[in-house]
Amino acid sequence: MSDYSRTDAAPSIGPDHHDGLRYPGPDAPFYLATGNEIAVFETCHARGLPVMLKGPTGCGKTRFVEHMAWRLGRPLVTVACHDDLSASDLTGRYLIRGSDTVWLDGPLTRAARHGALCYLDEIIEARQDTVVVIHPLTDDRRVLPLDKTGEILDAAPGFQLVISYNPGYQHGLKDLKPSTRQRFVALEFAFPSPELEAEIVEHESGIERDRAIALVTLTNRLRQLGDRGLAEVPSTRLIVAAARLVAGNIPVRAACHAALLGPLTDDPELLAAMHDLVTSTMP
Amino acid sequence: MSDYSRTDAAPSIGPDHHDGLRYPGPDAPFYLATGNEIAVFETCHARGLPVMLKGPTGCGKTRFVEHMAWRLGRPLVTVACHDDLSASDLTGRYLIRGSDTVWLDGPLTRAARHGALCYLDEIIEARQDTVVVIHPLTDDRRVLPLDKTGEILDAAPGFQLVISYNPGYQHGLKDLKPSTRQRFVALEFAFPSPELEAEIVEHESGIERDRAIALVTLTNRLRQLGDRGLAEVPSTRLIVAAARLVAGNIPVRAACHAALLGPLTDDPELLAAMHDLVTSTMP
Amino acid sequence: MSDYSRTDAAPSIGPDHHDGLRYPGPDAPFYLATGNEIAVFETCHARGLPVMLKGPTGCGKTRFVEHMAWRLGRPLVTVACHDDLSASDLTGRYLIRGSDTVWLDGPLTRAARHGALCYLDEIIEARQDTVVVIHPLTDDRRVLPLDKTGEILDAAPGFQLVISYNPGYQHGLKDLKPSTRQRFVALEFAFPSPELEAEIVEHESGIERDRAIALVTLTNRLRQLGDRGLAEVPSTRLIVAAARLVAGNIPVRAACHAALLGPLTDDPELLAAMHDLVTSTMP
Amino acid sequence: MSDYSRTDAAPSIGPDHHDGLRYPGPDAPFYLATGNEIAVFETCHARGLPVMLKGPTGCGKTRFVEHMAWRLGRPLVTVACHDDLSASDLTGRYLIRGSDTVWLDGPLTRAARHGALCYLDEIIEARQDTVVVIHPLTDDRRVLPLDKTGEILDAAPGFQLVISYNPGYQHGLKDLKPSTRQRFVALEFAFPSPELEAEIVEHESGIERDRAIALVTLTNRLRQLGDRGLAEVPSTRLIVAAARLVAGNIPVRAACHAALLGPLTDDPELLAAMHDLVTSTMP
Amino acid sequence: MSDYSRTDAAPSIGPDHHDGLRYPGPDAPFYLATGNEIAVFETCHARGLPVMLKGPTGCGKTRFVEHMAWRLGRPLVTVACHDDLSASDLTGRYLIRGSDTVWLDGPLTRAARHGALCYLDEIIEARQDTVVVIHPLTDDRRVLPLDKTGEILDAAPGFQLVISYNPGYQHGLKDLKPSTRQRFVALEFAFPSPELEAEIVEHESGIERDRAIALVTLTNRLRQLGDRGLAEVPSTRLIVAAARLVAGNIPVRAACHAALLGPLTDDPELLAAMHDLVTSTMP
Amino acid sequence: MSDYSRTDAAPSIGPDHHDGLRYPGPDAPFYLATGNEIAVFETCHARGLPVMLKGPTGCGKTRFVEHMAWRLGRPLVTVACHDDLSASDLTGRYLIRGSDTVWLDGPLTRAARHGALCYLDEIIEARQDTVVVIHPLTDDRRVLPLDKTGEILDAAPGFQLVISYNPGYQHGLKDLKPSTRQRFVALEFAFPSPELEAEIVEHESGIERDRAIALVTLTNRLRQLGDRGLAEVPSTRLIVAAARLVAGNIPVRAACHAALLGPLTDDPELLAAMHDLVTSTMP
Repeated sequence: MSDYSRTDAAPSIGPDHHDGLRYPGPDAPFYLATGNEIAVFETCHARGLPVMLKGPTGCGKTRFVEHMAWRLGRPLVTVACHDDLSASDLTGRYLIRGSDTVWLDGPLTRAARHGALCYLDEIIEARQDTVVVIHPLTDDRRVLPLDKTGEILDAAPGFQLVISYNPGYQHGLKDLKPSTRQRFVALEFAFPSPELEAEIVEHESGIERDRAIALVTLTNRLRQLGDRGLAEVPSTRLIVAAARLVAGNIPVRAACHAALLGPLTDDPELLAAMHDLVTSTMP
Repeated sequence: MSDYSRTDAAPSIGPDHHDGLRYPGPDAPFYLATGNEIAVFETCHARGLPVMLKGPTGCGKTRFVEHMAWRLGRPLVTVACHDDLSASDLTGRYLIRGSDTVWLDGPLTRAARHGALCYLDEIIEARQDTVVVIHPLTDDRRVLPLDKTGEILDAAPGFQLVISYNPGYQHGLKDLKPSTRQRFVALEFAFPSPELEAEIVEHESGIERDRAIALVTLTNRLRQLGDRGLAEVPSTRLIVAAARLVAGNIPVRAACHAALLGPLTDDPELLAAMHDLVTSTMP
Repeated sequence: MSDYSRTDAAPSIGPDHHDGLRYPGPDAPFYLATGNEIAVFETCHARGLPVMLKGPTGCGKTRFVEHMAWRLGRPLVTVACHDDLSASDLTGRYLIRGSDTVWLDGPLTRAARHGALCYLDEIIEARQDTVVVIHPLTDDRRVLPLDKTGEILDAAPGFQLVISYNPGYQHGLKDLKPSTRQRFVALEFAFPSPELEAEIVEHESGIERDRAIALVTLTNRLRQLGDRGLAEVPSTRLIVAAARLVAGNIPVRAACHAALLGPLTDDPELLAAMHDLVTSTMP
Repeated sequence: MSDYSRTDAAPSIGPDHHDGLRYPGPDAPFYLATGNEIAVFETCHARGLPVMLKGPTGCGKTRFVEHMAWRLGRPLVTVACHDDLSASDLTGRYLIRGSDTVWLDGPLTRAARHGALCYLDEIIEARQDTVVVIHPLTDDRRVLPLDKTGEILDAAPGFQLVISYNPGYQHGLKDLKPSTRQRFVALEFAFPSPELEAEIVEHESGIERDRAIALVTLTNRLRQLGDRGLAEVPSTRLIVAAARLVAGNIPVRAACHAALLGPLTDDPELLAAMHDLVTSTMP
Repeated sequence: MSDYSRTDAAPSIGPDHHDGLRYPGPDAPFYLATGNEIAVFETCHARGLPVMLKGPTGCGKTRFVEHMAWRLGRPLVTVACHDDLSASDLTGRYLIRGSDTVWLDGPLTRAARHGALCYLDEIIEARQDTVVVIHPLTDDRRVLPLDKTGEILDAAPGFQLVISYNPGYQHGLKDLKPSTRQRFVALEFAFPSPELEAEIVEHESGIERDRAIALVTLTNRLRQLGDRGLAEVPSTRLIVAAARLVAGNIPVRAACHAALLGPLTDDPELLAAMHDLVTSTMP
Repeated sequence: MSDYSRTDAAPSIGPDHHDGLRYPGPDAPFYLATGNEIAVFETCHARGLPVMLKGPTGCGKTRFVEHMAWRLGRPLVTVACHDDLSASDLTGRYLIRGSDTVWLDGPLTRAARHGALCYLDEIIEARQDTVVVIHPLTDDRRVLPLDKTGEILDAAPGFQLVISYNPGYQHGLKDLKPSTRQRFVALEFAFPSPELEAEIVEHESGIERDRAIALVTLTNRLRQLGDRGLAEVPSTRLIVAAARLVAGNIPVRAACHAALLGPLTDDPELLAAMHDLVTSTMP
């Protein structure tokens, strides 16, 4: 992603919930753009193209979607995908309530009906039936057939499908089928530049800029250990956690150990090597 | 497929939905014939022969079926097959509604009852029970036994079964049983010729012919990389997505990267090679 | 099978449905006997012996059973077996209808109760519980214990169990247990002789005898390719489909390609070899 | 088994059904004892010891149990075990009937409650939970805890548990746990001597003794082929089927082919070898 | 286990059932102690420590638990564990009865609520969820959270959890997790000494002491064959069964064959070797 | 963990239960801190950071969480994770009660709604859907979407998510996904120093300090056998169990055998080696 301008926004304020939908609040969720992702997303939204977000854990994909929902003024429905998520979990089911049977829209149906953004997080974890059920919503038909009710739901204007996954994790073991992939426009995410990342850490934890820069510098060194056995390198999210412990008066090395190293691995040697790095670089 | 005449048709207009069926609208869905597929399909429809469509992702199989439904004036029922699609998902089930129990036809039963085209997309993904349940509809009996209601449904005139799959994907891992295959007449699909494909891209995205030709040319070069690790080559659908981004004022290289390359693979080297190709050929 | 006389019969006329059973119509389903199969079947029916039909896909096993049902004047219940067919699918289940619970006989129970022929097609695909549930109906007890209702159903006179499978397909992977096999009298089926097969094609498609003979001759050459990678050789059913396309004015080579070759395989080389054979032998 | 006296009995007459139980009729089911199995069984019944019957397919285990039920004057409950038989299938379940919920005893509970013989045929096919649920009925407790109703059912006097399996089939793949096996007294069954077997065939089919002897002699030769690839050797049951076809005027070689050879195997070479044996020995 | 005094007790008399619980009768179930197991069990019961019993099939673990329930005057709930035993099978479930929904305690809940001994037999066969659900009952909390009702049940005084398994069977294939094992005090069981075992056989079958000694002596020789292919050596239970047949006038060799050898194995050679041993040592 | 001050607390008194929640009692559960774990936990609680506890079986993780719940004055909800724990088990489900349908919060929902600590013990045993369902509660959203009711629940103030697992057990076979791990601050636990451990044993069992020290010394020798085949080394919990048996007048060697050695392994050689160690060191 190249050099688009960044997004200035007030600190995020809690969103508004009703109808099982989460409407954006008055203030933009904090997001610093790193490329043309906002323009491409807006074009996709305007021209009916679904979007897939690729990138490592904790690099800001979820926050980006929240930010776009605010920009577009659409409610946001988020579904964390997993192995046991069935098609019915997405589309809905009948429930017996007293002597009545009522249909309850699932999150995908709710999003399509009300013109919301529907964000399927870590789509790669879902079973094929979850994935296949979104197909008719991704092409020009923009319909969702609800076999159980006999309804063929036309997606409301503003509805947008967004999926995400982490291409660096379990690559090869699980994968999207080509017939699914080729239905999406792809946006690639990476960790922000050190300057942007320190700004994010400062904003999210309240520590001073200097300490934020020190934590980001340390983290980038840790990230270089990625090919020495780490399943995944430390994310911006972890730096923010460490910074919050520091802000709560936990000594900085203890904070790094608990929030930055411990979550990464259980391997004693790798932990020791990272611990040395912390001791030699942090005050 | 040889040189049959092409199909002229007005731009597609949204279809009409009622009774859980999707009736064709007044105008033909846009489809450019590449061979004798229309004549063979019409003969099969007239003489009670089910049809299987073979071909790669995004080459127009779904659009062809929509076009034929319009030609034959029949409603169309589409089912995206997957691992968890059960026989009941196709045939129907009882539902409790208040103090009543009502039978709800599944999509296959609905199609057979109302003389619709029933299109089972990616049939190869379905479990055997999905596949076997269609057998009695494929021979001269043309019946669908509904064991749960005790009904033996005679398919209405006009009912036609259509299945599709992609023979190039997961070949050998999943396959239709011979006793299923030998119940269908086979139509083979491939990507259209460059001229036809550019015409499709122009029609679907609204960009000028020159830019459409450039995108098609680039895509055909990318398709030649198919044996260097791509699970599947880029489809006409992807070219249309890129063209729509271009039509929305996204720079052409960025549009190609997001819509044409990103969906194909996560492999960094392959992406870099394709990126070079884009840079060297697109303005 | 040796040289028993053939069965002359008028063209088949649609059967009569009621009570969830399919009663034979006034005219015999078209069937040309190839051996003593009719006499053996009738003796089995008279002396309470269940029958198993062995033979390749599309060689006429189903039509034979329909013919025998007509001869014996019994209704016919057909069940296409598959991996997910449960014992309850065969025997029946309770259904809630409003404030009442009603028992619904499954197809096997219906057949046993009304003295029908019960035909379990491709029994080898079924799970063991499907297979085991028929055991008490196959010996002198001729009972079907319905544990869910507490009923022990004595099979009505005329009830006859018939199973079929294709011994050439997936041999070794799936098999009937000896304790099941040894409950049946076996009838072996093969493709008819060229003369008989041409007569069938003529009858079923309406093309002239010469063209039928040409198609049968071609097919027998294709059948000799069976050990070069075909999962199964082309069946009589496929010749009939090709003949019907020809009858609908599709050129004969195109008809062979679509109806005779395409359904057999997706292997490009094998398709090319068969295509050459078609080109060199068909006008 | 040694030389106990044989059991003389009139031809079997259909049993009496009520309460979901099958009471023995006035006449003994035809059974010719081959050893001390009747005395051991009677002692086990008198002293509360469950019994396991071991032996090949179709050698008369089921008939023996029917005969013993008649001797002991107890109703007989037979369950054909399979992979999907659950503990609830044996013990019972709640059913909703209109606005009431009723408990329905399963076959094991019914047998324990009414003092019946409970025969679990091919127990080795059942899942562990089926097997384990019978444990409390096999020791001095003789109780069946019904967790779903909270009842602890004491087995009625006369209740007897009988299990059977074929030790020669799938040995090693499936097996009873030692903690189950050691709860039973074992009776071993084999095919009867030629004289006894011919007497059985004569009795069950109505053909003359000479022809019965010829069929038994042929079968014993076929049984010697057992180690040349037959999953299991031909049973007495098959000889009876062939004899019935002969009694129905099917030529003896054709009868042997259909009833004696065909059910044994699909292997063409093995079938040919057996066919030669039939041709060379049968008129 | 060393030399604690043995337990004298009258012959066992049937227990009393109510509330779905089995209360001990007035007389002690017959049990001969072989070590300090009674003292350790009583201390565990007094100090809130759950107990695990290890030992081979049929060596008296179940009888020991019945004896301890009688000593402690607590009702006994026994659950035979298996692969399909779910957490709900242990804790309970809601049932619809007419227009009411009632909660039905499972056996574990019933035991915890009424201060019973809860004996999970062959715990190693259970799924992890069965095992994990008992964890909160095994430490100082002594609670059972019933998520479905929202109740957090404090175990009543007297409640004691007892589990058992056979460490010699399927060792390595199935195992308890360390986090489960380390919640129990372990008592190891083995077969009793020959004198004790003969006394048990005499008591349980009613044969004279001499014949009991002969059977025990034979069995101990058979036990030495354990490493020649027996899945498990013959248990005290089998000797009792043989003795009961003898008491019923079955000749002693036939009784040994049916009750002592047949249940152990299906291997013909092993059976022949054991048969020789019986013939050479028994009159 | 380094040298933070220890926590003095009165002996634990039973907690208070209502609303399906377990409120802390007036007195602190006994816990001796071994490092800065209390301060880090309090900071995490104050700043909305979820916590993961890593450490071996029986080292005090559960007690620590109970202690923290008491310190923070929050109710505690504990869930023992296992393979079959579904997302609905955590979030809740609809129940039919008479003619009404009521929603029943699961433990996670109950905790989020009432601001409780929610402790997911042995999270690594849970299926992915259990794990993924907690994601929205772990970041700044702090929401729990309840798809079945359409509610989006904002976690109440005071809600804190705590997970635990044992990194030394089944390492590699099961693991948390990086996208889950990086949502938690990690606290590492190990067995306490000998002095602390003896103090704990004394407190929990009531034996004198000398005997507690002897048991701890023995256990530390046993722990050094860890790499000779023990799945896991003996925990503090086991020492407490042995000490309680001693307090109940079981001889110390017998107590060690039953409570300290037996639960560790079934391997005879390993048991013998450990037994020798007990004999040579304990009086």
